[in-house]
Amino acid sequence: MKINAHAASRAGARLRPFAYEPEPLGPEDVEVAITHCGICHSDVHLVDGDWGDHFPLVPGHEIVGTVASGASHAPGTRVGIGWQRSSCGRCEYCRAGDEELCPDNQATCMGHFGGFADRIRVNGRFAIPVPAELPSETVAPLLCGGITVYSPLVRHAGAGARVGVIGIGGLGHLALQLAKALGCEVWAFSRLPEKEADARRFGADHFATGKPARGSLDLVLNTAHAVPDLGAFMAALRPRGVFCQLGAVEDPLPVASMDLIGGRKTVCGSAIGSPGGIREMLALAAAKGIAALTESAPMARANEALDRTRKNLARYRMVLVR
Amino acid sequence: MKINAHAASRAGARLRPFAYEPEPLGPEDVEVAITHCGICHSDVHLVDGDWGDHFPLVPGHEIVGTVASGASHAPGTRVGIGWQRSSCGRCEYCRAGDEELCPDNQATCMGHFGGFADRIRVNGRFAIPVPAELPSETVAPLLCGGITVYSPLVRHAGAGARVGVIGIGGLGHLALQLAKALGCEVWAFSRLPEKEADARRFGADHFATGKPARGSLDLVLNTAHAVPDLGAFMAALRPRGVFCQLGAVEDPLPVASMDLIGGRKTVCGSAIGSPGGIREMLALAAAKGIAALTESAPMARANEALDRTRKNLARYRMVLVR
Repeated sequence: MKINAHAASRAGARLRPFAYEPEPLGPEDVEVAITHCGICHSDVHLVDGDWGDHFPLVPGHEIVGTVASGASHAPGTRVGIGWQRSSCGRCEYCRAGDEELCPDNQATCMGHFGGFADRIRVNGRFAIPVPAELPSETVAPLLCGGITVYSPLVRHAGAGARVGVIGIGGLGHLALQLAKALGCEVWAFSRLPEKEADARRFGADHFATGKPARGSLDLVLNTAHAVPDLGAFMAALRPRGVFCQLGAVEDPLPVASMDLIGGRKTVCGSAIGSPGGIREMLALAAAKGIAALTESAPMARANEALDRTRKNLARYRMVLVR
Repeated sequence: MKINAHAASRAGARLRPFAYEPEPLGPEDVEVAITHCGICHSDVHLVDGDWGDHFPLVPGHEIVGTVASGASHAPGTRVGIGWQRSSCGRCEYCRAGDEELCPDNQATCMGHFGGFADRIRVNGRFAIPVPAELPSETVAPLLCGGITVYSPLVRHAGAGARVGVIGIGGLGHLALQLAKALGCEVWAFSRLPEKEADARRFGADHFATGKPARGSLDLVLNTAHAVPDLGAFMAALRPRGVFCQLGAVEDPLPVASMDLIGGRKTVCGSAIGSPGGIREMLALAAAKGIAALTESAPMARANEALDRTRKNLARYRMVLVR
């Protein structure tokens, strides 16, 4: 039976109904009946052709639905699917639980048809059961946006760590909640003073529109679409501190060697996380009541919803509902 | 009794004999009778005034000598002293064995009078016993140059790791030996093809004057005085790979965000190391026969020796001998 999706036929095109015959269900695969799909900025980049020719393109990689068939899950299990749909399962990275680094990793909606659809087929290892406490709409954005900020938080910041989050948007509003849930002391940095109330509601202990104080932070997560005053944030790091870049930005980050050497500091990047990481994050979200703040739209109105994300109007994440 | 040293009275001045009355010996301090002192590029920077006004300046922070007095060591113990002469001993960094990050750390020859002298007084925790197997002349450069490369090697590379060393000079020739001794597979990168034979003698398994192969390295140590083709070295890193900058360079490192994000890579810096690290490194050097390749000169000819370091003529490290 064909899968009914919404696809862009070329760069920048409006999405139109698009039906396709799915690949046969492999022994490790599941078919999931989709109920919700979040919209991420990378969906906009893909539709707009910024990341190459992947057309026809069915966006969507923050998927929640129920298992329709496949050996790995009981039918009806509610699962979440993020950016990654498969990995080899055998390489050094897969064996270490770093499946996102697998050289054969496959993306849910780049090279395959994604979650703006009624169904999808993926490797069952990448369909993560969703705890009963978590509503489908508000958990969907955790599956890409959430894990992208959760991974560097657990890698670089424990309880009591001083964490700065630059940008209070789709990723940032989840970073504030997750950092707070992990026991960190949390600083929010935004150019927009009107975001203070929201930032504090999400868990920020401090809010600033200007420069951070010297030697005040252990970890900075840059979720903004631009490189901030990097020197000021490097100076704000304490010894052994980490500046983590999460978004792709055009200009290189101008990293001063003395900012790295003196206090043994690090500039790093991070993208998504592993299935194990997603499972851990969802358990934390269930325990602490973490939820994306969402605006929903019916999947049939995917074009308008994409536009809101494209224009940074969503407060704080769009989710399509079937 | 006054200490007889060689000092620069102002930026760029030739060193001249300089006698000073040492601070009283504190309860944690030792006085060391100096026999050898290596010359590091930072001595040249200090004498030339590149790092501010610290005049009169007695350079020297790769010191070997014997303990003359002080409660922490038996008289006559042969010890080494590196860049750091003291730390508070109580802060979170000192307690974690990261004394080099202590906010009250003191430098051996910046703000204090260094090792171009007959004697020196330092905190006994920073006078590290030298294993009997290690000759004083060839161990001296390990105390700053060696620990500077050893620290990131043990932090980021275990046995079997693929390590690239950029620059075959004072630091680089020690990095090759230490990486090999730690069981790494070692690549040497130099613009000068004539350094290949030496590089292989120091332990390089591979030598290249050009770009590294994509996805071939776990760790890159940049010991060169310039930023290399950073994009090529970032592309050469495998997932989770680390580019470590060791020297202060004027231009910022232009780090592309996509080079950090995709494979979860890191750009970091490192400077010297802790007394515990120096002790570990000296034990490894004794076990594996690691030695700096040195040119020696009498301390009375410190100016000529400094000039050789200034002009990058030393193969590979100058050591002053009393």
